[in-house]
Amino acid sequence: MSEDSDNVVRRFDASGASFRWDDVPVLDYKTDAAAPYRDVTRQTLFKRADMKSELRYFEVAAGGHSTLERHRHTHAVLVLRGLGACLVGERVLRIGAHDLVTVPPLTWHQFRAAANAPLGFLCMVDAERDRPELPDAEALQRLMSTPALAAFLRGEAP
Amino acid sequence: MSEDSDNVVRRFDASGASFRWDDVPVLDYKTDAAAPYRDVTRQTLFKRADMKSELRYFEVAAGGHSTLERHRHTHAVLVLRGLGACLVGERVLRIGAHDLVTVPPLTWHQFRAAANAPLGFLCMVDAERDRPELPDAEALQRLMSTPALAAFLRGEAP
Repeated sequence: MSEDSDNVVRRFDASGASFRWDDVPVLDYKTDAAAPYRDVTRQTLFKRADMKSELRYFEVAAGGHSTLERHRHTHAVLVLRGLGACLVGERVLRIGAHDLVTVPPLTWHQFRAAANAPLGFLCMVDAERDRPELPDAEALQRLMSTPALAAFLRGEAP
Repeated sequence: MSEDSDNVVRRFDASGASFRWDDVPVLDYKTDAAAPYRDVTRQTLFKRADMKSELRYFEVAAGGHSTLERHRHTHAVLVLRGLGACLVGERVLRIGAHDLVTVPPLTWHQFRAAANAPLGFLCMVDAERDRPELPDAEALQRLMSTPALAAFLRGEAP
């Protein structure tokens, strides 16, 4: 999508298996090769010079997952399709269509699609924001010491 | 919803005819008695001191419509359910589930649900924003001089 596009309406494209919109390119989820993830696409639905936030759509294919990370900025998430689970801080929660997820500042988080269904979600973020941090060995060990978190991180459905 | 709620996940409530979420109150669309509208509810899904924008959900019942207005701030809209049409500037466009609508600054706009279906949409806005302006007689007359806009404003489906 070009910034400040003058397209008043951009149409949802329901023709494929994944959610798509006219004039919205499907991008790699991450360009940082060091950030581990699996089967995730990113589409920027709204990003404009005259708005202080962006609205993105991420789609995690069945069995896939986003990067485990944290940052100072907050994520405001609305699940648009599918099923899955999220790790947020000390918690693992199943999520489905239209559920709302808040990821507060400096909170480890990861989204996983169900084994047999994609997980597509909107994510609102401030346009000006810090870069994500990946867990070091110590942080990862701390997370893995909680059985529910360890099971989630191993890819076992909650 | 309380600001900075520590509810990580707030569940979608699919039990009723209208879209609802746990811990998200259903509010009047407008509290300004001078702003004409019909059958619209407002739910604030995300509004936090640590985010620069808000995400709201508006649901227009079948046959209803939002207020015709304009303002300096931009609306970023994603239709979540149903069918309808919108007037944005000089254009009237039919919209349906998951379509994206951009309302640029100082652009007259109104959303109308179809006669037989609700129109529910997300709207991202900057948290700091100006108040809407209503059209005066002259502005309304100018809009009504375009047949497609006049038909829309009379409630005739495009």
